[in-house]
Amino acid sequence: MSFGFRVTDTDGRARRAVMSTAHGDVETPAFMPVGTQGAVKGVTHRDLESLGAQILLCNTYHLYLRPGDDLVARRGGLHRFIGWTKPILTDSGGYQVFSLSARRTIDEDGAHFRSHLDGSPHLLTPEKASDIQARLGSDIAMVLDECLEHPSNEAAARLSMERTARWARRARDRFLEVRSADQAQFGIVQGSVFPELRKESAERTVEVGFEAYAIGGLSVGEPIDVMYDIVSQTTAWLPDDRPRYLMGTGTPEDLVESVARGVDLFDCVLPTRNGRNGQLFTSEGRINIKNARYAEDDRPPDPGCGCYTCRTCSRAYLRHLFATGEINAATLNTLHNLNFYLDTLRQIREAITFRRFESFRLAFHQSLSRQSLDP
Amino acid sequence: MSFGFRVTDTDGRARRAVMSTAHGDVETPAFMPVGTQGAVKGVTHRDLESLGAQILLCNTYHLYLRPGDDLVARRGGLHRFIGWTKPILTDSGGYQVFSLSARRTIDEDGAHFRSHLDGSPHLLTPEKASDIQARLGSDIAMVLDECLEHPSNEAAARLSMERTARWARRARDRFLEVRSADQAQFGIVQGSVFPELRKESAERTVEVGFEAYAIGGLSVGEPIDVMYDIVSQTTAWLPDDRPRYLMGTGTPEDLVESVARGVDLFDCVLPTRNGRNGQLFTSEGRINIKNARYAEDDRPPDPGCGCYTCRTCSRAYLRHLFATGEINAATLNTLHNLNFYLDTLRQIREAITFRRFESFRLAFHQSLSRQSLDP
Repeated sequence: MSFGFRVTDTDGRARRAVMSTAHGDVETPAFMPVGTQGAVKGVTHRDLESLGAQILLCNTYHLYLRPGDDLVARRGGLHRFIGWTKPILTDSGGYQVFSLSARRTIDEDGAHFRSHLDGSPHLLTPEKASDIQARLGSDIAMVLDECLEHPSNEAAARLSMERTARWARRARDRFLEVRSADQAQFGIVQGSVFPELRKESAERTVEVGFEAYAIGGLSVGEPIDVMYDIVSQTTAWLPDDRPRYLMGTGTPEDLVESVARGVDLFDCVLPTRNGRNGQLFTSEGRINIKNARYAEDDRPPDPGCGCYTCRTCSRAYLRHLFATGEINAATLNTLHNLNFYLDTLRQIREAITFRRFESFRLAFHQSLSRQSLDP
Repeated sequence: MSFGFRVTDTDGRARRAVMSTAHGDVETPAFMPVGTQGAVKGVTHRDLESLGAQILLCNTYHLYLRPGDDLVARRGGLHRFIGWTKPILTDSGGYQVFSLSARRTIDEDGAHFRSHLDGSPHLLTPEKASDIQARLGSDIAMVLDECLEHPSNEAAARLSMERTARWARRARDRFLEVRSADQAQFGIVQGSVFPELRKESAERTVEVGFEAYAIGGLSVGEPIDVMYDIVSQTTAWLPDDRPRYLMGTGTPEDLVESVARGVDLFDCVLPTRNGRNGQLFTSEGRINIKNARYAEDDRPPDPGCGCYTCRTCSRAYLRHLFATGEINAATLNTLHNLNFYLDTLRQIREAITFRRFESFRLAFHQSLSRQSLDP
């Protein structure tokens, strides 16, 4: 099946759609759990499917280094290698490379970096990012973009945005040569917090032409209102008939607010990473399960939740598992957090269909504002 | 329901039975996964149940220190605290305390030890072990026995066996006062590798009178033939109408050989601990999944196995998960190993019912002898 996107319902700027990929459909707005190295930490594929995960994000940087894209290709591609039959999106590897800071230099060619594992030198170019993802055989590949540090001044942001635009062309040209069967490629809009740059980036990315468009370079430390404004403006400059993907964001509140501004796709490590650290997202706010106040608390983590963890575990038990370093703490907390995220998106989709997204959004924030955040 | 044991089939000295406990029946011969701190490392209760686990072993030493037996009692007991509705056996805490070596001293009163967590001083007596397990509310409690180091000479083994016998009386007396509803208590036969001492220990333990009898102090370094001989002789001195539990043993081969000698119950950390370390038990022997030879091996870990791991994961993927330190490596390896153990016991029970245990035993060892053990 080739890539497609069909909007089925709209409510204000929020929209519900079906995104078709080579490995099946994804109902949007959708959240993509992060399976960095080909696995979501602490949760099996079986559990992910039962939670309703429709698409997985895997990190090209990690898979390129271990086990290597060539090895994955010899196994028949990423789906067969990891045994995940639904859609997979791979990032370009750029974000991880740029995060290496001391270990990388950027020029027009690409990003020169040293592996965090063994210090070996590598060069990631727009072409190579397309090549690797073609070998991985993901359903959706991302272009290599330049990820700017925040804050940056407008001149630096312009130079970076322009380089990203040139790289987008190179990445697309190579992609069209090497793409795996029915693979789609998403372009990425950059431009930091400067609306004019965002607008120009959107126009230049759309001009290259991709199956869909992502918004990169947000959730990097800018004020939340600035992020929401940039999202709101950028989605308006992107075509209505293509998915819009807000990369690496965010809190449950961020997801609801971004859907209200026309975003369709999300990924974030918050539910999984915070779960491993003992922080649980609930309908009444976040709780830190390691807190001593939960030692004798027989309530489930989220009384309003029907996930396996909430059906079978008390806060007291989860605190005990976390305090004693049990692997199951990571599993049970992550199961709950992913359920919270995926269920929030399911509620969002339903609210859009019934044209009550605004009342859902209001109730969602009201519920969270009753929260008693743990210290 | 009160404790019971009903033998339904015998084949040679092997027997199949139903052991009834306050939380339901256990079909024996049975293997008890070890849930040290109230959780089997890396595997949720849901997974354990789907694997066919009928009874869990939890460690009194660990639960006494964290979260504390008082806290567990306030939660309504161990079953409610950890959310496991089937039977639970608790050990006495003795084995862990004796393993602390430098941090403990033993006298007639009991074992004085310092916590491995904070160095705090504690005294574990036969009475206290009964008290703690009553508060935990396990279905089966174990008496506190003295665990002798191996090798020991016969004089030392005699003194230790005699102390264990005196402790058994004290543990039983206290148990009868404090037991939780329908809790059963198993006595433990000691006596090292000396048949005369084992015989006397069995007689003295039976004289005290317990719901069932365990064989302790084996799998501690003695030659395998010696262990099998001691097991064979000891079971003969124990009553036919009570379960026999070989503590802390062993390999799959040990289980088959011990069933042939009249043992009904087993527990061991091998399937779980080895799973976390990357060693998988298969019908053709053990494999170390971290071995480079599996990097491009698309076969399941055990081609003859139908578990979730073998149905969905290649050796190449499991090696990748282990090499990259993914939590899922522990989960998937442990799932497979527990399935191997539990399925072996299921096959044993079936073989006994159809009176073909000897041919099963022969085929089992032949299959393993075809193994190409990893270096």
